[in-house]
Amino acid sequence: MSGTPDTLFALAAGATRTAAIEGISAAGADPALMAHTPSADAELLTYGHTVRAPVVPVSPSGCPTPAVITRAVRELVGFESLVIDAGLAEPTGAPTVTTGISPGADIRDETPVPDAEAAYSAAYEFGHGLHTDELVIAETIPGGTTTAMGVLAALGEPRIVSSSLPNNPVALKERVVDDALAASGLEQGDLAGEPVAAVRQMGDPVLAVVAGLAAGALDAGIDVTLAGGTQLATAGALVRHDGVTEPMTLATTSFVAGDDSAGIDALAADQDLAVTVTDPAFEARESHPAMAAYLDGEAKEGVGMGGALALAAEAGIGMDSVRNAIISVYDRV
Amino acid sequence: MSGTPDTLFALAAGATRTAAIEGISAAGADPALMAHTPSADAELLTYGHTVRAPVVPVSPSGCPTPAVITRAVRELVGFESLVIDAGLAEPTGAPTVTTGISPGADIRDETPVPDAEAAYSAAYEFGHGLHTDELVIAETIPGGTTTAMGVLAALGEPRIVSSSLPNNPVALKERVVDDALAASGLEQGDLAGEPVAAVRQMGDPVLAVVAGLAAGALDAGIDVTLAGGTQLATAGALVRHDGVTEPMTLATTSFVAGDDSAGIDALAADQDLAVTVTDPAFEARESHPAMAAYLDGEAKEGVGMGGALALAAEAGIGMDSVRNAIISVYDRV
Repeated sequence: MSGTPDTLFALAAGATRTAAIEGISAAGADPALMAHTPSADAELLTYGHTVRAPVVPVSPSGCPTPAVITRAVRELVGFESLVIDAGLAEPTGAPTVTTGISPGADIRDETPVPDAEAAYSAAYEFGHGLHTDELVIAETIPGGTTTAMGVLAALGEPRIVSSSLPNNPVALKERVVDDALAASGLEQGDLAGEPVAAVRQMGDPVLAVVAGLAAGALDAGIDVTLAGGTQLATAGALVRHDGVTEPMTLATTSFVAGDDSAGIDALAADQDLAVTVTDPAFEARESHPAMAAYLDGEAKEGVGMGGALALAAEAGIGMDSVRNAIISVYDRV
Repeated sequence: MSGTPDTLFALAAGATRTAAIEGISAAGADPALMAHTPSADAELLTYGHTVRAPVVPVSPSGCPTPAVITRAVRELVGFESLVIDAGLAEPTGAPTVTTGISPGADIRDETPVPDAEAAYSAAYEFGHGLHTDELVIAETIPGGTTTAMGVLAALGEPRIVSSSLPNNPVALKERVVDDALAASGLEQGDLAGEPVAAVRQMGDPVLAVVAGLAAGALDAGIDVTLAGGTQLATAGALVRHDGVTEPMTLATTSFVAGDDSAGIDALAADQDLAVTVTDPAFEARESHPAMAAYLDGEAKEGVGMGGALALAAEAGIGMDSVRNAIISVYDRV
């Protein structure tokens, strides 16, 4: 470690009741455990094991959380990380930066994120006060692609998002977003140029925090990498709708890039985000339980997995080393 | 960084209204700023600079917080650290582990720490769940030596504590503690063997968290070092009064060891604590503003300064390197 770290990896962890809609998310073995997923992901990133969370998150089919992969890269690269409480619903043993935001309600409520403005401001000030060269921002929030679609609709952007499920439940998400627009008295595009209002009425607390953090850091001259898929691209859209034009990179996985239902390239291009795609080549260990489900299209992204893989690649660490580290973390947890 | 860190440095940061008694503490330039000291210390340890806190803490005479020294050692040694919110009164930009405890009231109130039991339990469970070889525990709480004296009185231990002031206001502390005993309807020693009750009626939230954390970690087989002076020794007394007999080390500075008003050796021996004293040899840079006040008897300890210096010594880092790093951090902040 030397003085101020060059790269800081910030994980915004929170919850939205939208995740409780049946069929929306695979970020937990069952609905009761799903509420613990962000708290557990925060612990895995920080400590490499769970502390207060009851279990290591897996999908209903047993796919382990992408936090395993991000932690494995952190052990190899040694980047500094921190967790921001962006509306956690369950306790975590990880240290968290406070933003004062509560878990989000179902976006089919009129105002699912009533404290979006305060959280955006708190995150902006925090990001603006950091001394680092590069800030990598990640998320963990089950149901987050649906709320991202809601925000894209409010902003008037094409509503195309990825999924943690192998078969993206696009029709279900479209229906939820249509209901959410109706509940908020909105038409598609009504909140263009009003990013905080879009989150307040159609989003989730993690989007408020990620967007505020990115905007604050960019305004302070920090390089910002959005580490994730369509949710992070949506956060990028929020930053653009706030009038911030500085360059930003979206670092994602080959699993998101290969998801034709997601259209990540078009979404990123629309928001003037450079895209970095990293392929961990899980085919080389295709039968390992930490990797097989990704090859089958599960999870795809989350907890900044794509950004972490990009940091490994930048550090000159081969994906064979990354895969070995993943197996080591998986066996440990 | 490799897998699970071998040494984890945990800072319990909190507040007690006892610090507002005039003449009790030097941990802040004035009473209004003193409430921000723990929040700022947490940021300095974590980032090497302040983020949300308004200023870098200094004593009324300008002595910089010992967080500067602990941070300097962290930059040299690279140990992992985390902050526990043990009743912070002001916001911090540092990530914190939650214990649910509130700032403490004046110990002259009947029950200054009503949530001591819950915080002790939360800290115990957290410490018990950590996977580390060694846990170094530190504190930042203005007024903490007075509340420590209160707890020692309740436990029936000799009430001898150090001070952040060059001239320890012992008579004032004795009077405050006598008033506090009376307010709680207690005689000296009434709460021997009842450590949580002693904190609840006579202590501060940081003592509840440090003692719970130490007891939990010890019961999990983790080596525990109490990094500090008489406050940490008092936390050790709480652990002993809870019936925990495992070895513990108290790592402190030569400034505390040289404080005849504190009697740290006797206090530590009474609680079966091994003592490590590290002398940073500030005489070598006696005119530097980061060091001169320590030579004059100010501050003496805090934010685990003695424990950090011991970690530097263990890592084979010379005190000349430590002094240079202190100057570098001081100039930066």
